[in-house]
Amino acid sequence: MSSMNGAQTLIQTLCDAGVEVCFANPGTSEMHFVAALDHVPKMRAVLGLFEGVVTGAADGYGRMAGKPAATLLHLGPGLANGLANLHNAMRARTPIVNVVGDHATYHKQYDAPLESDVEAYAKPVSAWIRTSLSADAVAGDAAAAVAAAMGPPGGIASLILPADVSWLPAKAPASPLPITPRASVPSARIDAAARALKSGRPCALMLGGSTLLEPGLVAASRIAQKTDAKLFCETFPARIERGAGLPNPERLNYLAELTVMQLQGLAHLIVVDTKAPVSFFAYPGKPSYLVPEGCEVITLADPDEDAVGALQALVEASGASSAAPKVEAAQRPDVMSGAVSSESIARTIGALLPEGAVVSDEGNTAGLFVPFLTTGAPRHSWLCLTGGAIGQGMPLATGAAIACPGRKVLSLQADGSAMYTAQALWTQARERLDVTTVIFSNRSYAILNMELQRVGATPPGPRALSMLDLSNPVIDFAGLARSLGVSATRATTAEEFTTAFARAMNEPGPHLIEAVL
Amino acid sequence: MSSMNGAQTLIQTLCDAGVEVCFANPGTSEMHFVAALDHVPKMRAVLGLFEGVVTGAADGYGRMAGKPAATLLHLGPGLANGLANLHNAMRARTPIVNVVGDHATYHKQYDAPLESDVEAYAKPVSAWIRTSLSADAVAGDAAAAVAAAMGPPGGIASLILPADVSWLPAKAPASPLPITPRASVPSARIDAAARALKSGRPCALMLGGSTLLEPGLVAASRIAQKTDAKLFCETFPARIERGAGLPNPERLNYLAELTVMQLQGLAHLIVVDTKAPVSFFAYPGKPSYLVPEGCEVITLADPDEDAVGALQALVEASGASSAAPKVEAAQRPDVMSGAVSSESIARTIGALLPEGAVVSDEGNTAGLFVPFLTTGAPRHSWLCLTGGAIGQGMPLATGAAIACPGRKVLSLQADGSAMYTAQALWTQARERLDVTTVIFSNRSYAILNMELQRVGATPPGPRALSMLDLSNPVIDFAGLARSLGVSATRATTAEEFTTAFARAMNEPGPHLIEAVL
Repeated sequence: MSSMNGAQTLIQTLCDAGVEVCFANPGTSEMHFVAALDHVPKMRAVLGLFEGVVTGAADGYGRMAGKPAATLLHLGPGLANGLANLHNAMRARTPIVNVVGDHATYHKQYDAPLESDVEAYAKPVSAWIRTSLSADAVAGDAAAAVAAAMGPPGGIASLILPADVSWLPAKAPASPLPITPRASVPSARIDAAARALKSGRPCALMLGGSTLLEPGLVAASRIAQKTDAKLFCETFPARIERGAGLPNPERLNYLAELTVMQLQGLAHLIVVDTKAPVSFFAYPGKPSYLVPEGCEVITLADPDEDAVGALQALVEASGASSAAPKVEAAQRPDVMSGAVSSESIARTIGALLPEGAVVSDEGNTAGLFVPFLTTGAPRHSWLCLTGGAIGQGMPLATGAAIACPGRKVLSLQADGSAMYTAQALWTQARERLDVTTVIFSNRSYAILNMELQRVGATPPGPRALSMLDLSNPVIDFAGLARSLGVSATRATTAEEFTTAFARAMNEPGPHLIEAVL
Repeated sequence: MSSMNGAQTLIQTLCDAGVEVCFANPGTSEMHFVAALDHVPKMRAVLGLFEGVVTGAADGYGRMAGKPAATLLHLGPGLANGLANLHNAMRARTPIVNVVGDHATYHKQYDAPLESDVEAYAKPVSAWIRTSLSADAVAGDAAAAVAAAMGPPGGIASLILPADVSWLPAKAPASPLPITPRASVPSARIDAAARALKSGRPCALMLGGSTLLEPGLVAASRIAQKTDAKLFCETFPARIERGAGLPNPERLNYLAELTVMQLQGLAHLIVVDTKAPVSFFAYPGKPSYLVPEGCEVITLADPDEDAVGALQALVEASGASSAAPKVEAAQRPDVMSGAVSSESIARTIGALLPEGAVVSDEGNTAGLFVPFLTTGAPRHSWLCLTGGAIGQGMPLATGAAIACPGRKVLSLQADGSAMYTAQALWTQARERLDVTTVIFSNRSYAILNMELQRVGATPPGPRALSMLDLSNPVIDFAGLARSLGVSATRATTAEEFTTAFARAMNEPGPHLIEAVL
């Protein structure tokens, strides 16, 4: 033990606490961390060619593994490149141990070119930040970071690692700290929810966060079946379990106009591990807060509380103990022929999605059909763009595949968003991950064409429209994928897409299919 | 005027103040800004498919145009994606009006998914930050932003633009504000420098920032010729004018070990619009501050002062009024044959670089020969990676090409760094920019293999080395470029490279040449 350095004790501590994957894009100040990887073989290091890949992969891993991966980023600018996907991870409340290298403690005073305030960069996305100040302290700091990431409510624990803290001799790794359990919900809140459900007036449960895995879904569905409450799911869940045999809460719509219609007439909205719905953006003359006037919002459980336990208690309190949940029947759509379209893609996916798939959904406008046509597919996990920062999808799929060997990962990717972090394909090739990426190639920021009208900025002129147009030049996504080592196909007909998708589902990945809409 | 909205007055104000290019990656909250582009045709909007392209292009434009471009970014995460290149621009002291959209003022309270503290994201890189609070205020805020960006010392002025400030009616554009001139350097400092130069003891001038265009270079060279002072240039200048007929100060080395040798024996170091040299990173047992013990550092001019005027005054004070500058003779290297190599590439570039070229240098280790073999080439501008945040090169070249129509832009790009912001190639194709990108494809983070040894993390094991290896899979940069609409060639021999480079210099771009080392 006496011959370890700070980096070695750090990595050993992470492994001992169950953090066994590190998504990395290192630089000079992290070289001792990198060298220490050969001393702690249990830690799997996965290289990303851009930090947005690293942080998005850590998010995908954490959502599926239920425990943190580590990142390894290079100083403030390296962290900055990863912030957008950390924003998404923060909104998903994904546990991540975000390790950011910094200059040696004594070097910071010299304001070298890469000098920056790393804590300032980390602050907007971090639930916990600590700069490790000595090689003897770093192992303890790492143990604290893992505990902070696990919460409750959990999130991003940013551990800033000066170079000399890595390279100086250190005593020993630290033992894992206990994980704080989520607090039980007080019975008064369960009673209040039960009263609303029994009031005879229109009532809905709105589910989010931890309640969207099987136990929470089943409990909520039993309540809804017994009480006639509606069952909603937040608009962009971090992870929801779906498919035949599972309850299928109705997702609130991205379009506020439609959410208002979904919620119309409600007297009580019981919110569970999420918050009352608000519009994604503001629009002139339209409401931001979407709960109908006169509707009472009842918070059953906050994110740091045991929301699933609260739902199970509410089963009893609402008299639903003998109610059966309403689950989706096994059902697959027919495939289509003719030109490839958003619907034909969704039908093919619905027809062929394998049991246990993990879907990373950044299909945006062109992908809107897919959730509807996969409700009766075999059970699968669905991961959404939680924070609205595009460029999440392909990194998220990468991390999910690392977390779930043996499960097919399907990466639904809008073309505009694909251009943010396409470097993830290289990591998929390098690690031979079983990911199939479907690019919805409509050659525009289609959502912004719609938004331009929704915000009332009409009629748009040619210069405005050109800012939303990706057709000049056309991006060859199949060629892009091949340039990064991923086998790729282009599909212009529904038949071609079905053939390519069937092959991708039957052969280990990675694959990419560019669907030209 | 009465029918204008905030966005229209903002764009008109920017144009009136000379800001006529906007590099943009907009989202919903910026749709009224986008729509307003059709009302102010003088503003040229250039779309980037990733924010790092947008900010890097604004940096390249500002360095060459000597005035700011605007950016248009989408909320905190969009700004975050652009921060690394804003860090480089901050280190370059490039004037940029950094426009960041935000939610409508009344919408922020709802903590929608994309909500973030935009000012917190902007703070580490901004010389000036203001959130515009009303449609009537935004024009005045924009005028203030331009003045702040121009300085002195100038830099990034971040103007945060809530969506309703864009869409609400506004009175009128604002008039440009006067630009504050740089303060004159007090004569006492010029006298102190002159005394050092005349002391008879070893003396050097270290030039940075504004002194590296022709007037500063000529003045400094005359002083050096008269007084036998050495002439150094900071390690990573934002922009230096070079080539036949111009003085060529010796650049301080990236490797601190070599910088120490360059400065050895000096009694006086006169620092002009830069600061005394420090090591880029810290290394165990090596110094961070590189000025030799006993050497007196004399600051002639700070970045907010008139450094060129101070050098011209120092010409008089040091008795160099009749001295001629020492300039580079016109000289071109011979090209090589055989396998392509760092040297053969540099020789070809030195042999064929056209008059007036602009070179964006992110060649890193593999590009080290090029500056040495172009000293006698026709006059050209050279732009360095100022802040160490890789991924600058291709965006910088893009912005420089927008600023300098009619000049060839050469983008020297290391392969590892190329993977950060390769989306810039698409903008080059869309705008038909005359940029030739040379990829130094050595399939590794070569600099980190060297740094692993320099930090003493030896012997590295296979897992550490694999973190620096880009060969699995090999990246096909020519294919990547073609997928983004840029014509591309692969060169494996010096002859192939010379043929491809000659063609690229003779045909309008964009082009990409992948040199397989």
